[in-house]
Amino acid sequence: MIDIALLGTGGMMPLPERFLTSLLVRKRGRMMLIDSGEGTQVTMKMLGWGFKTIDLICYTHFHADHISGLPGLLLTIGNSDRTEPLTIAGPEGVKKIAEGLRLIAPELPFAINYIELKEKYENINISEFDLKAMQVDHRISCYGYSLDIPRAGKFDPQKAMELGIPKELWSVLQKGETAEYNGQKYTCDTVLGAPRKGIKLCYCTDTRPTADMPDFFRDADLLVYEGLYGDDEKLEKAVKHKHSVYREAANIAKAADVKELWLTHFSPAMTDPEEFLSVAADIFPNTVVGTDRLTKTIKFEER
Amino acid sequence: MIDIALLGTGGMMPLPERFLTSLLVRKRGRMMLIDSGEGTQVTMKMLGWGFKTIDLICYTHFHADHISGLPGLLLTIGNSDRTEPLTIAGPEGVKKIAEGLRLIAPELPFAINYIELKEKYENINISEFDLKAMQVDHRISCYGYSLDIPRAGKFDPQKAMELGIPKELWSVLQKGETAEYNGQKYTCDTVLGAPRKGIKLCYCTDTRPTADMPDFFRDADLLVYEGLYGDDEKLEKAVKHKHSVYREAANIAKAADVKELWLTHFSPAMTDPEEFLSVAADIFPNTVVGTDRLTKTIKFEER
Repeated sequence: MIDIALLGTGGMMPLPERFLTSLLVRKRGRMMLIDSGEGTQVTMKMLGWGFKTIDLICYTHFHADHISGLPGLLLTIGNSDRTEPLTIAGPEGVKKIAEGLRLIAPELPFAINYIELKEKYENINISEFDLKAMQVDHRISCYGYSLDIPRAGKFDPQKAMELGIPKELWSVLQKGETAEYNGQKYTCDTVLGAPRKGIKLCYCTDTRPTADMPDFFRDADLLVYEGLYGDDEKLEKAVKHKHSVYREAANIAKAADVKELWLTHFSPAMTDPEEFLSVAADIFPNTVVGTDRLTKTIKFEER
Repeated sequence: MIDIALLGTGGMMPLPERFLTSLLVRKRGRMMLIDSGEGTQVTMKMLGWGFKTIDLICYTHFHADHISGLPGLLLTIGNSDRTEPLTIAGPEGVKKIAEGLRLIAPELPFAINYIELKEKYENINISEFDLKAMQVDHRISCYGYSLDIPRAGKFDPQKAMELGIPKELWSVLQKGETAEYNGQKYTCDTVLGAPRKGIKLCYCTDTRPTADMPDFFRDADLLVYEGLYGDDEKLEKAVKHKHSVYREAANIAKAADVKELWLTHFSPAMTDPEEFLSVAADIFPNTVVGTDRLTKTIKFEER
């Protein structure tokens, strides 16, 4: 199970009624954040999930509206009594950029580790979070992220009994792990059915659509994707600045066969993002026009 | 005449209902800003005075709550079509700090000039603004500012006529300047009375009180000064972190014989800053507990 909060929905600059786009994910009490523009810590405060358990901050890219809130956020995490190290991941150069911003927040009670993304596809495994990153197509290096939570097959107690597996080991094997008892090794494959559908969450903003997106987002439970403009007439402007419009987001959601699409990263010029919902929903019906602090819980399917 | 807006009143971190402390001053259509923490551009947007005419940004010091909003603010000023150079002043190191923050806002349509304050007392003269800066007493180098607008003496038309000064020159002499006509030079001192009281605005935050403050703030029309805590019991904490409490702000306002005191830079722990007004007002009656976007216009006195 994961909890998701879209902390803001704005692009380019923070507005009085719209925080900048970022996403907070909570899993088994730990949190990860994607992007932190100016004001992200304020909307996080309004959300109320706390700051102390953020183990990972991923950046899509280094435009100010996606990272300028970093120094203040780090100080506020520091004020939450965190002492465990925190990991910051992002495109190549993330350490240089973050350390430049940190000139105004030099003293923190925790260490920072950096992960620099260089390849087209990369993997990140920190705390509770196994992520895939894919480089997308913006004016500077930019990554989309996919959080995948696999789920082991169903445990078969009948079979476990037939095989004489000690009951003490059942819960371990149930999790898909290997167990040992009195020198004998037991593997889970003997008592587990085929792997069941897990949870998949994808996040991608500030990019043109790319050919590999449908595969990368395939079957996601939720895709959070940018819709800088709702109006098709703004497509040329979106292309010029390497962004996407509602229609393109919906086409990608449809091609990737995701379950749900959340639009975000709205242009400050778009005063009512909901106005253009039908542009996307006509293509991909399960589209939601994002709002600040929209939350969702995704559970494993009953099976 | 100047217009003043206290853009925020918070210290340490921005809160959902309280922006970080900064001050905007407008004079003859030009603006200067003191400090810009995370979110300052948002409260500026709410204020509605625009962004394009900011000629000078002064920083008191380089703690994140006073400067973290710089990159986003610069981008928003850039979006306002400004192309004229902008000056950033602050304690020594301001260029290094600002350029570190600007790694995420590298492309701006205007140049930036820097003024590094090194001495105990410094003068800044940019655009419409003649400022004095005084180093105060915080954990890192920190400056208080005083904006002084002198006013020439009253023009005596009777005397100007007696002296046979051509009427074309009157308006120039009236401003306290020197004029030339048909090769003859006229100075204003012959037709102006004694200099009249001008306007004085002082701003000082994140400091312990110092012995030279009363002289520096002397007779100000308005002193904006920090009151991190209202409760006297928090004095020890304020001393430890080199801040001031309400009582100290009021004592300084009284000693400097200013006309009005605005308290600001409230601790996030102080949910109702107004609650402690009497602590200051019992000492200095004309105390105002600051609120976000509190504004005031100060005009030359009628005389």
